[in-house]
Amino acid sequence: LAVGIVTKLNTPIVVELNMKIGIVGLGLIGASLAGDLRQLGHDLSGVSRQIETCETAVSRGMVDRASTELGSLQDTEVIFICTPIASILSTIEQLVPHLAPTTIITDAGSVKGAIASPASQLWRNFVGGHPMAGKAESGISAAELGMFAGNPYILTPLPDTPSHAIEVVTKLVRALDCRFYLATPEQHDRAVAWISHLPVMVSTSLISACLHGDDMEVLTLAQNLASSGFKDTSRVGGGNPELGRMMAEYNRDALLRSLRQYQVELEGTIDAIESHNWEQIQGLLAQNQIARNKFLN
Amino acid sequence: LAVGIVTKLNTPIVVELNMKIGIVGLGLIGASLAGDLRQLGHDLSGVSRQIETCETAVSRGMVDRASTELGSLQDTEVIFICTPIASILSTIEQLVPHLAPTTIITDAGSVKGAIASPASQLWRNFVGGHPMAGKAESGISAAELGMFAGNPYILTPLPDTPSHAIEVVTKLVRALDCRFYLATPEQHDRAVAWISHLPVMVSTSLISACLHGDDMEVLTLAQNLASSGFKDTSRVGGGNPELGRMMAEYNRDALLRSLRQYQVELEGTIDAIESHNWEQIQGLLAQNQIARNKFLN
Repeated sequence: LAVGIVTKLNTPIVVELNMKIGIVGLGLIGASLAGDLRQLGHDLSGVSRQIETCETAVSRGMVDRASTELGSLQDTEVIFICTPIASILSTIEQLVPHLAPTTIITDAGSVKGAIASPASQLWRNFVGGHPMAGKAESGISAAELGMFAGNPYILTPLPDTPSHAIEVVTKLVRALDCRFYLATPEQHDRAVAWISHLPVMVSTSLISACLHGDDMEVLTLAQNLASSGFKDTSRVGGGNPELGRMMAEYNRDALLRSLRQYQVELEGTIDAIESHNWEQIQGLLAQNQIARNKFLN
Repeated sequence: LAVGIVTKLNTPIVVELNMKIGIVGLGLIGASLAGDLRQLGHDLSGVSRQIETCETAVSRGMVDRASTELGSLQDTEVIFICTPIASILSTIEQLVPHLAPTTIITDAGSVKGAIASPASQLWRNFVGGHPMAGKAESGISAAELGMFAGNPYILTPLPDTPSHAIEVVTKLVRALDCRFYLATPEQHDRAVAWISHLPVMVSTSLISACLHGDDMEVLTLAQNLASSGFKDTSRVGGGNPELGRMMAEYNRDALLRSLRQYQVELEGTIDAIESHNWEQIQGLLAQNQIARNKFLN
């Protein structure tokens, strides 16, 4: 598999492995991944800080066993770290003393530049990953089987990532029936900045503008008249504040790059309206009506 | 009814009138309005430029009769003009020679500042209106009964609009079980700029930025990774180009005012990210998460 270029491999593959897999973090992503991998015949050990979450994961059949101790993963062959971004590197540091050097670690963080390189420094057999299935709810109670099927899953190996580690994680992940991509961490972060992190900032600025831009009578009328157009455009900007903050904090450079390009485009739209250039506005909207279709999967 | 302030009248009222009503333009809005008003017991005459549309309106029972001639409305008491914005004033001009001076005219245009004052100059008994129900489809084939129930309907009379005309249109409209509001044309236009026209420009600039901001590999990856967040935020920006152009052209001043405030808010968001002020970003998102709820009806 070529690293450093965007690759899409769509054909489902048969996994002949029956591996000992560890999952750290049994939230929406971790518990769903565990459930799918266990159903494929692998042996699953889960780790959560909450004993109640461990019990739920076992009783719902998502893992074979679960523990609050990272040391319980000492005999696993592959470990998926599905904690919040801020805990990924510290989790690897705490795992290191327990693991055999052949153990492969991958993660599920939604940014990769801030993770892939330092994680590979901590553990040679590290392959950055990002499963993009998700829903508004979080936690193990929202977890379900088959959540990754048909959705993107990106791996972001580095030039010096051992090819065996890439192959093993690729096989495990592709068996989930996901749409599989390989990219560099920077390509990944720029792509998600465009389609995930930029929309959050664009959308939240819309809510801010509506709140601050007019008198109380017009604001009240606007609130009463708002319908599906405003609702859809403001949805991600009115979403989880901690998640939005993490996007900005951990993908700052790519997000700022996207925001500056967005400012240029917005300025162009405003200029056309100021100069009564209605043909240009209509042309812009017609171009974007067509272009948007390529973003709908 | 006080004019010039935002008023909401929610109690449904019983209409005792049985009026002769004309509808010009039998598209989604016009045909749906006709169907509802006819079911309330009024006598409905429709006018469309297309003879096929006239036939459909009659055969679907939305009107009692239909014609391609505006003169066919000479005996009506109230006329709803449901043409595209660009044709509203010329339609009134063409109607004037046929009508008794007591005839009341109202419209269904989505901007009011550019319509209400010149229309009132052309016809004293004019009351600007904006029924806000709508869907993605257009034309008589998309028309349906009950489309306005529960949705906003705004009337925008002027200080010198005859009170009898306001009362008659108010009674007809409130019988649709809509959420009824009175506002000045300027208040209306500023409110819809915030929640309808600004979102279109914000959203289409997002698509433009994604198209132009990166190399082909990252653009392709972004297109493949895009999911519901991008889809929702880009929806209205990838909508009907003619409609978006009309919003900009006919509501230019209010839209530019909103766009400039939006630029200020966006700049503030970018400044916070540039200066690593993550608490400010999280606070902004938390504020907007709460504020957005007031826009969800």
